[in-house]
Formats: sequence, C-alpha cells, structure tokens
Amino acid sequence: MDKNVRTDLALEVRESFPEDDVEIRGVELTEDFNEKENIRVSTVIIKDKKGSEAMQKPMGTYITIEAPELSKSDEDYHKPLSDEIAKYLRKLAGNLKKEEVLVVGLGNRDVTPDALGPQVVDNLFVTRHLIREYGNEFKEKNRLGSVSAISPGVMAQTGMETVEIIKGIVKETQPKLVIVIDALASRSVNRLNTTVQLTDTGISPGSGVGNNRKALNKESLGTDVIALGVPTVVDAATIVADSLTQYMEKSGFDEREIYQFVSEINEQQINNMFVTPKNIDESIKRISFTISEALNSCFSQQIAS
Amino acid sequence: MDKNVRTDLALEVRESFPEDDVEIRGVELTEDFNEKENIRVSTVIIKDKKGSEAMQKPMGTYITIEAPELSKSDEDYHKPLSDEIAKYLRKLAGNLKKEEVLVVGLGNRDVTPDALGPQVVDNLFVTRHLIREYGNEFKEKNRLGSVSAISPGVMAQTGMETVEIIKGIVKETQPKLVIVIDALASRSVNRLNTTVQLTDTGISPGSGVGNNRKALNKESLGTDVIALGVPTVVDAATIVADSLTQYMEKSGFDEREIYQFVSEINEQQINNMFVTPKNIDESIKRISFTISEALNSCFSQQIAS
Amino acid sequence: MDKNVRTDLALEVRESFPEDDVEIRGVELTEDFNEKENIRVSTVIIKDKKGSEAMQKPMGTYITIEAPELSKSDEDYHKPLSDEIAKYLRKLAGNLKKEEVLVVGLGNRDVTPDALGPQVVDNLFVTRHLIREYGNEFKEKNRLGSVSAISPGVMAQTGMETVEIIKGIVKETQPKLVIVIDALASRSVNRLNTTVQLTDTGISPGSGVGNNRKALNKESLGTDVIALGVPTVVDAATIVADSLTQYMEKSGFDEREIYQFVSEINEQQINNMFVTPKNIDESIKRISFTISEALNSCFSQQIAS
Amino acid sequence: MDKNVRTDLALEVRESFPEDDVEIRGVELTEDFNEKENIRVSTVIIKDKKGSEAMQKPMGTYITIEAPELSKSDEDYHKPLSDEIAKYLRKLAGNLKKEEVLVVGLGNRDVTPDALGPQVVDNLFVTRHLIREYGNEFKEKNRLGSVSAISPGVMAQTGMETVEIIKGIVKETQPKLVIVIDALASRSVNRLNTTVQLTDTGISPGSGVGNNRKALNKESLGTDVIALGVPTVVDAATIVADSLTQYMEKSGFDEREIYQFVSEINEQQINNMFVTPKNIDESIKRISFTISEALNSCFSQQIAS
Repeated sequence: MDKNVRTDLALEVRESFPEDDVEIRGVELTEDFNEKENIRVSTVIIKDKKGSEAMQKPMGTYITIEAPELSKSDEDYHKPLSDEIAKYLRKLAGNLKKEEVLVVGLGNRDVTPDALGPQVVDNLFVTRHLIREYGNEFKEKNRLGSVSAISPGVMAQTGMETVEIIKGIVKETQPKLVIVIDALASRSVNRLNTTVQLTDTGISPGSGVGNNRKALNKESLGTDVIALGVPTVVDAATIVADSLTQYMEKSGFDEREIYQFVSEINEQQINNMFVTPKNIDESIKRISFTISEALNSCFSQQIAS
Repeated sequence: MDKNVRTDLALEVRESFPEDDVEIRGVELTEDFNEKENIRVSTVIIKDKKGSEAMQKPMGTYITIEAPELSKSDEDYHKPLSDEIAKYLRKLAGNLKKEEVLVVGLGNRDVTPDALGPQVVDNLFVTRHLIREYGNEFKEKNRLGSVSAISPGVMAQTGMETVEIIKGIVKETQPKLVIVIDALASRSVNRLNTTVQLTDTGISPGSGVGNNRKALNKESLGTDVIALGVPTVVDAATIVADSLTQYMEKSGFDEREIYQFVSEINEQQINNMFVTPKNIDESIKRISFTISEALNSCFSQQIAS
Repeated sequence: MDKNVRTDLALEVRESFPEDDVEIRGVELTEDFNEKENIRVSTVIIKDKKGSEAMQKPMGTYITIEAPELSKSDEDYHKPLSDEIAKYLRKLAGNLKKEEVLVVGLGNRDVTPDALGPQVVDNLFVTRHLIREYGNEFKEKNRLGSVSAISPGVMAQTGMETVEIIKGIVKETQPKLVIVIDALASRSVNRLNTTVQLTDTGISPGSGVGNNRKALNKESLGTDVIALGVPTVVDAATIVADSLTQYMEKSGFDEREIYQFVSEINEQQINNMFVTPKNIDESIKRISFTISEALNSCFSQQIAS
Repeated sequence: MDKNVRTDLALEVRESFPEDDVEIRGVELTEDFNEKENIRVSTVIIKDKKGSEAMQKPMGTYITIEAPELSKSDEDYHKPLSDEIAKYLRKLAGNLKKEEVLVVGLGNRDVTPDALGPQVVDNLFVTRHLIREYGNEFKEKNRLGSVSAISPGVMAQTGMETVEIIKGIVKETQPKLVIVIDALASRSVNRLNTTVQLTDTGISPGSGVGNNRKALNKESLGTDVIALGVPTVVDAATIVADSLTQYMEKSGFDEREIYQFVSEINEQQINNMFVTPKNIDESIKRISFTISEALNSCFSQQIAS
C-alpha cells in the first residue's frame, strides 16, 4: 500500500492488494451477509508474522460490519445494527473474562468527527460504583456486569500519551477487559459513518506495526483489549493521492511515475488536514448511540446471557 | 474560475485571474501592510455590474485581513489583530448608523469548523436589554452601544431559511445595522484560520451572484449588513481539483482536457465533504475570541470613539 | 398563595388552597390514573375571569402528567410516558390546525436545569425544509407533518425579549401552531423532573397574570400556542419559606406572624438563587429525549393519525 | 458546627465559632487586604491535631482570597485577581518542586456549577508533551514548566473513584506536584463565585477528617497536592437550616430545641439538592478563565520567576 494512503481498516488493506481473489499467505478472509438488514460482515484473520507484514497490521481478528444505511437517519435501523455489533462483540470477548470491563472513549470531544469515543461513553450505563456500593447480591439480582468508563481527551489537551493514562487506571482498577472506542480514518469516503471495525489487537494511534510505544493493547496494558472503531474521516492527502492515481492510471502512466508524483503530496500542507461530511454531527450522534446500546446490552445488562 | 473551485473570498477570486497585474474593469484592488505585526490588508472594490460579473460577487467593498500568525497560539498576537479588525469594521460601518447593532452568528455549533459564528456570539457583550431596562442615562454613562445577538442554527436544525429567521427578528427589533459572522470556504489550505474578510455586501449562503432568495443583505433584510467571515474549510472537491489541475498543467495537458477531467470530480461523493485541520477546535476558539473582542470594542463599549 | 412561594404549575396553585375538597368557582379539576404505568393525569380548567383571578393564571386548560418513575433511569419507562404525553398533546392540539408546527425551546443551554428546551429541540425531527424542497408528494408519502424549531437563547444572551424573536419568526414563517418548551419552577422538590405540564394558554416568563408584555401566547404571537413545561428547579426563597412555614405552624404561630417573618426572606440575597438536584444533567437528558419523541410522533411522523 | 451545615471553606468553619476574637488552640488566622483592588486574603493555619479536631479539617495551610467584584462581569478586574491567585499559589508551592505539574479538573462538565474544574483545564496551556517531543532546550528557551492536565469526570460517569484514576495516572507520569481544581460548597450565598480557597492539604470529596479512602492528598497520591477551590453552591439543607436557626434564635428558642428541629431537615428530600445563582454559567466561565490564567503564569510560562 502506498505511503500516502492511510487507512485504519484491515478490510481496506486487504482490498488494496491487486490479487483480489488470491489468498494472501497468513491472512484469512470470510464473509457473512444479513440480506434482510443489508449488513455485510467480513472477518479478516491475520494468523502469523508473514500475514502481519503483508497487511502491516498486528496479528489477530478484524471484524468489519458494513451497514450502508447507517449514514441515514432511519430509527428502525438502529436496533438490528446494535444487535449485530453486540453479537460480534460477544464473539470476540468470548474467551475473555468479561465480568469487569473498562470502556475508553478516545478522541477529542471538541472536534466533531473525533468525538465518537467521548459520545459513546456519555451514553454508557456505568455500573462499577453501584456494584461496589450495593454488593454482589444487587449485581446478580439486576444481572449487571461491572462497567467503568473514561474519556481521557487527546494529547494536545492532557500533555500525556493516552497509554500512560489508561495504563495507570488499569493498574489501579484491575478490569478484566478494556474496550477502546475510536474514530478511524478510512481510505474511501463511501465507508465514512457506515462501517464498524472490531478487533482483538487493540489500537495504535498513528497506526503501523511496531510503534508499540503508543499502542493500547494487551502488551502495553496487561489486559485483554478489544478496539471498536468507526471511520469518520479520510486523510486529505489520501483523497488527493487516490484521485490522482486513478486519473494517472486511466491516462496510461506507469506505476513508478505515479508513485513519484503522489509522494510529493506528502510534503504539502494538507498533511494535517482531514476530509469529513458536512452533516458529521448527526452521524456521530446516531452512531455513538447505536454503539453504546450494543455495549450496554453486552456488558451492563447481561439479560439472558 | 472553474466550477469545481469554490471560494467565499473575493481576494481569491481576484487572484484566480491569470492577468495578475492587469486591471480588471470595474474592480479596484489596494493593499496595506502592517509590517510590525505581519498583517496584510487587501481591499477589493467591485464598482459596477461589469466587475460584479467578472468576479461573480455582488458590488461592494471586500476587505481581507491576512494574519499568518493567527493560526498559532500566541496570546500576544490577539490584541493587535483584534484592533486591526475593529479599525476596518469601523471604517466599513462608517456612514452606517451604528447605534443599534444585531450580531448574527451563522453556522452549526455542533460541527467544529462551522461553529465560528455561534462561538463569537457566546463571547459578545450584549447590551440592548440593559439599555432598555436602565435607560439612556445608563447607556451614556457607560458609553454603551446597543448590541443584540443571536445564533439561529442551520436549516437542518431549524427547518427554516436563516433569512426568514433574521428578517423576522429585524422587523421586530429594528436594529440599524446587522453584522453577520460566518465560517467560509477558501480555495487554499494556507488561508484557513489566518484570514478575516469584511464586506458591506452581506452574505449569500451557498454563494454566487443572483441567488438572492437566501442572501442576508440590505435588499433582503431592509437594513445595512456587514458580513465578517473566516475561512475554516476548503471544499474537498476544490482541493482535489486544484491538485489535479496543478499536476496536469505540469504534465503539459491543455486547458480543455484539464477542464473535462476536473469536471468529473463534481459527480463524485466528495461533494458534500470538506477539508479542515486536525486542531480546528483550538483555532476556532482563539479566532472567535479575537473577533468578539473586536466587536465589543467597536459596538458595546464605545470608549473614546 | 404567599408572595414568596413561586410555582409555574397550575396544579400546585390549586393545591395551595386550604379548601381542598371544595369547588373553587370557575375552576374545574378532573383526574385520570394509569395504574399500570403509575402515571397520574390531572386536568385543571380555568373557565372564567373569576377562576383566573383565584388561580392567578390565564383562562385555559392545564394538563399535569405526574410520573414519579421519570426521575429514575429506567429505559422501559420512556415509551409509555412518551405515549401519554403525545396523547394529551394531540388532545390539546385537537381543534388547532396542526399541519405546520414551530417548536420553540426556551431557556439557557449553558445552565443545566434550564437546558430542557434547547435539548428537546436538539432531538427533534425537523421537516419543514424537506417538505419545501421535495414537495407535497414527498410529505404525503412519508406521512410527515411540517415541523420547524428554534432555541433562541435567553435575554442575557440575546439582548432581546424572547417574544420579540418568536413574533418575528412567526410572522415570516407562518406556522399554524407554536409549541413552547420550557423548564419550570415548582413549589415542591418532589415534583422536580417527574411532572409534565401542558397548557393551551401559552407561557409568561416571570409569570403572573397580566404581564403580557413578555408572554408567548395567542394574543402576542397571533397563532395558537401550546406550552409544555417540566419543573426542574424550586426557587430558593420558596424552599426556605415553605420549611419555615411548616415549622412555625407546628409551633403554633398564627398566620399573620408567619406571613410577616416569611416575607423578610424576600429581601435576602437568595432571591436570584434556585434549588436543583445534583444529578440534574441525567434527568434533563432523559426527559428531553422523552418529550422530543412525543413531539416527533405527534407532528413529524403522522403515522396512522 | 452543626451537622446540617456543610462548608468546604476553612474560613467559614473558623467563623462558625462563637468566640470570634478568641484564639482557637492549634489554629492561626492572619489577614491581608489589598485595598486598591478590594481583595481580602485570610490565611488559616491548622498547626496540630487539636486544631484539626476543632476545625474538622486536616492540618495544613488554607488561604482564602475574597474578591467581591469577581461575581461582576468586569474585565479590568480579571488581571489583578489572577495575579493575586498566582502569588499565593507560588507561595504554597514554594518548597514543592514545581517543575512538573499535573492539574486535575474535578467535577461534572454537564452540571454548570460543578463544571469549574473541567473549564479551567479547557483553558490551560498544556506543555508536557511539547517538552518531551522537543527536549529541554526547547523548554528552557521558551521558559516553560511541564504541565499536564485531565478532567476525569465524576463517579456517576466513570464508575471509578477519582482517587483511583488520579493515583494510577500519577504513578505512570510521575508529576512532582498535583493541583486539584474543584467547585466547593460554602455556607453563605454571599461567598458564591467571589472566593478562592487554596490549600496544601489536598481535597476530600464529601469532606470531613478521616475519610481518607476518597481523599486526594499526599498520603493517597504519594505527591505533593495543592487544592484550589471556588464555592459555587450552597447545600439546600444548609440554607434552610441557617434560615431556621436564625429565626429560632431571634424567637428565643434554646440551642437544644434548635438543634432538634434543624436535624430533622436531614431526613428530607432536599439533601441531594443544591442552591446556585441563576447566572451561574457566566460566573463559571469568567472565574475558570481567571484561574487558568493564574496557573498558566505560575507553571506553563515561568517568565522571570
């Protein structure tokens, strides 16, 4: 994948290989389609180091839930999607001891497309303090899981790496599972606010394999970590690079020429810019509500689980 | 100017003409430079219908204040820039009876780069109700102008055209001058959050000459109107079109070919997308404070004026 | 009723009369009880001038929906209460031409117990602009009513009386019905965030019969007006006066002595103070959602109506 | 002091003793008055266990800055008060190694009078990440101290005790000094939003000596702690108890009778209620700005210190 093209979605990395129908070694792809609700679920499993290198993502399971209607304001759609997310969350959390969960809402509450994490946390049903106050009987009677949550803010607001903050909190409060919610960058505008990615590999702000200093994962936190992300922006450099590439291919340029030109974009000022839709406020509000409902049904209210 | 390239800045329209040093008929351009503070002020006057057609903007005066440091978080810079804005505001409002001013903060408070108007209004010193309660003596003793303000929200929130709302309020409260604050689109990322445009022509949401149905101007409101805007976004289509054009020119394509390809971008989904910097929250907070200070010093507190 | 005791609820005024079981001339009281959902509905009709003077409220119908569970965070409770509110809204709006509705969210979005109105508007499904863009066919196909909405802010923010702003907007946009949402003051802390009052008399900020200068009602706006309010605060002076009165009665003081002492409270600094619960943020969020759902089902989505 | 009367201000505890002019053993009181700016500074030092028991506060220094004009919107007042706060902050931090500071904004951002801490943090100039990125040379050139900050939210939002969160973060990031910002309860409405208390004893949410489980202090965090608080609410029970006591004293009741009656208030529902002024949004905005300026001048920008 081109260095100008940034995506946090494993599925898009997988798609970026020309050999669409060829098996990449160490990478498994399976698909599910809920026709009635128009929800497509792709599972990418990166099984070994080879696959990890090819995909430039850590080994683990990446579940992508594509729900094209999610960007529309249809209330009837909210429940089936929330159920679908909960179903795959349970699957991923399966072997993990999910009795005590800490939900971390990453991102900047003051930048609309980055406010997904904080808004999910705002809608969560938090129970840990209730269970500690009223005891286990209360917990079992109400079928509650123990949920705590925090929106730490971003480094420009706190002066601290998020991993420093969360590591400290995890050590003190000892959750069995950390769920990290974050707004992602995708490559394609079509995926914005219509896709949910779940993974058991955690999250690397700034991304890329190897940069473990900032990663929130089992290695850094000492706890199982599930990351749940929704692409809400496309990097401006990516959108320009993709448009150019598409044009240059059509015009018969060869790969080397394309690469050379596109790499110049990197130097430009658009590198700290992102692209997002004009109605991003409505999308973030709707999706964060859907996700927090999924989390509530999975962890706070373990009805018939 | 190309139909894919959208800008709300008269200065950028002026610059888009190849004949940079040639006089465009009906358009006058003068410049001022405050070297000490690194603030450049360009005044474009569109004097007649000919100029209006060439520029695709209504006749009137457009003052552009360029302050490159504005995007940095330097507190010492705030005061000289606020003074500069106030100076040109007074100049534009000169002949207008500025005793009673209604400030309108356009835009959507929930979308960060569009929150400029509402945030300026949040910081305003509003006085109209105090003067009505305590009388003219109070007003003169405290050297107050009469300022009222509103942030009506955008059509997706209200179901109403902004002009309907403001027209109604103007008829009831009879201000002598309406000042409209809005976030603008520029063509260049370099201008984002570093430029302030003042004009006595009012504002046309969606822009373009002629679309007077939605315009907030003397004709629609029946009052003098000054519009104060800051570019906070670039249209995604514009950024792609500009990058492509630049590349194709370099590669020796002719104008017709470029035009044809660029116009295809229009059809794509990026048309309701915008580009904005990652730290847009800090920029909006800082600039809206600077602008409200300028307005306060001009209208609420008429010290030694 | 004592001058220190302020309530916006007609039901509380009615209760303040000692002759609880005696008919007050010109005032009719009927009750309904939904046992299953524990919702009590009292209807006070002030039929003539006599009743209006006794009650110190304008003539008209006041419906009070008491839902003690509303202050708890029980999601299952939301739907039946929302239905109940919608039912009585429809009843009140009955003869009114409800095709085109303007919802006004009164109050200050930055003071939590006063943010009810703005938060209801934030959750509304606004349709007027869609119908105007896509036409009547679209409207009928989707069974939409035409809904517009605005949260104008309070006088300290705008410098304008709310009635000036709304009057202007009503004249321009010509709705058939205005629905005003506001946070109210009740006399009793028990009613906070558990009671909804609906009335066809409009609303008088600052209250009291006669002060029509600031009232939002049919007379001032020229349109039918329904006011929907929830008590979210008790005046601090009221809570002190009530506690003192209760104590002094117990201690055998006569009415004159009590009156004299209580009236001194008026002079103290607590007069611009209010009392509200510590978890007011959760209550406002929950109730505003319930109310906007009721409004959406009544006006935006006229399903099977 | 009566159990119904809650105050977080050491000065008010001191005042509650009848022997106003008598020395309380183990407690030292000194006063300073800046006549020009009308700012009064009282320093209460609790020197030993005896004093701690009498005052029901931990041993240490409590500095109370009373600035009656602070509640008015006078911009000229902001700077001298900010300077005064900075002066006493430096005094308290004196022996503490203040090179690396973590500022903690306690309180609930969604409940206006409790949003002081988060709003102070919003206005802080955070530098720790810059120094870590650009190194010591950058730090010295710009005369920066290392400042980090967090607004963790309240237990109802996080499910965690604040001390758990902060303890974890302190262990990971190793600041030399923690500054805790919080909204306080005072006994008197006159002190609301006009008083700043600084102390080196830390803070005990829910207060009282002994409850160290929740305290943020040197013992619990392992770092020096300065608490900076502003009274923004009065407990509703306190205001009623004080009014009643005042009345009963006037009426000649003896202490025992008063105590008995007042203690009944405890049982009532007003116990989770607070009293706050109607314009609390403006006060919080203004004061939080003044405090963050004081912190910025003390710690981020060590100009000529």
